[in-house]
Amino acid sequence: MFTLYDYLPSGNGYKVRLVLRQLELPFRYIEIDILRGESRSSGFLSRNPNGKIPTLEYAPGAFLSESNAIMYYLAIDSHLMPSDRLHQAQVMQWLFFEQYSHEPYIAVSRFLLTHGELDDEKRAVLMQKKPGGEAALRVMNQHLEDRQYFVAEQYTIADIGLYAYTHVAAEGGFDLAHWPAIQAWLERVARQPLHCRITDQF
Amino acid sequence: MFTLYDYLPSGNGYKVRLVLRQLELPFRYIEIDILRGESRSSGFLSRNPNGKIPTLEYAPGAFLSESNAIMYYLAIDSHLMPSDRLHQAQVMQWLFFEQYSHEPYIAVSRFLLTHGELDDEKRAVLMQKKPGGEAALRVMNQHLEDRQYFVAEQYTIADIGLYAYTHVAAEGGFDLAHWPAIQAWLERVARQPLHCRITDQF
Repeated sequence: MFTLYDYLPSGNGYKVRLVLRQLELPFRYIEIDILRGESRSSGFLSRNPNGKIPTLEYAPGAFLSESNAIMYYLAIDSHLMPSDRLHQAQVMQWLFFEQYSHEPYIAVSRFLLTHGELDDEKRAVLMQKKPGGEAALRVMNQHLEDRQYFVAEQYTIADIGLYAYTHVAAEGGFDLAHWPAIQAWLERVARQPLHCRITDQF
Repeated sequence: MFTLYDYLPSGNGYKVRLVLRQLELPFRYIEIDILRGESRSSGFLSRNPNGKIPTLEYAPGAFLSESNAIMYYLAIDSHLMPSDRLHQAQVMQWLFFEQYSHEPYIAVSRFLLTHGELDDEKRAVLMQKKPGGEAALRVMNQHLEDRQYFVAEQYTIADIGLYAYTHVAAEGGFDLAHWPAIQAWLERVARQPLHCRITDQF
């Protein structure tokens, strides 16, 4: 059975939880409290030297990290991944977009606004993050204006990867009312069979 | 034939050029001068709405972006990618590590030091980028201490993805003399058949 080292509020962790659940793969859940430094402990660093959750123990003593790589591993031969190479590459394109052009703005803003006091330094960082987050949402909304899902008109790990932090973008100070195509897509994703919420316990 | 929209000094572009060359795939090269805003022109945005090079035209009027997704598309059935799912996921793990934990520190520092005058604002950003870049190099060096290549002891797109900005890390102010396992690996990568340099013209 898989063991997932994770932190419940993490959107990156949520991606993996959603895939495990929608593929009906049983797993053991171990909470790593990143606020208390547990992802930097020597015990955890022996599992992932980069010190980040989620990390999947896919076999006893063998670990895989990076949320989008874990989703790839779990989903590659499933209905959550297209079977042809071009569509697979398009899924990867959106997952790399998520990690480079979306997560560092929207997820980081959400973290700053939901953890600890808001001081001037944090406010300055939030101001810097705003244009990048809006740019990512603009690219997504434009793509979704004439599509149901990101790739191949089917629900894939590209949708899960982008859903994770987009559906809680308001917690990072981003107003999704500006982006109707994103809102309609969020509802489609939330209606998928076996969907669960980011805060659902395991 | 493929058409690559790219900018010669870009390490992200170099990844794709190296894969195209090592797989002996002919391509047309179109230079996009990002310093002159050519990646933000309406013509280019119609090819990649996220406004980033490299972008591959894989069929007339059809485009794929994100360097690591393009490498995946080109290499998936080749000797540059392992054939089993676990090793493929490990390749993806290192490519996501590269885009999230390596490129934003080392590539951005290199860009700041090689483009334009160095002022106080840039110096402050470089100071902020230093610990993240050193942490990425530490993770890589540790992994390479008992390995020849990043995944499955074969040369893959994980090596190409990490080589692109690591071999020019000194241009970003990072001293590779601290990391002997990385240095030995860089030499192994540079000895691969059909290797080319980042500045080689097409």
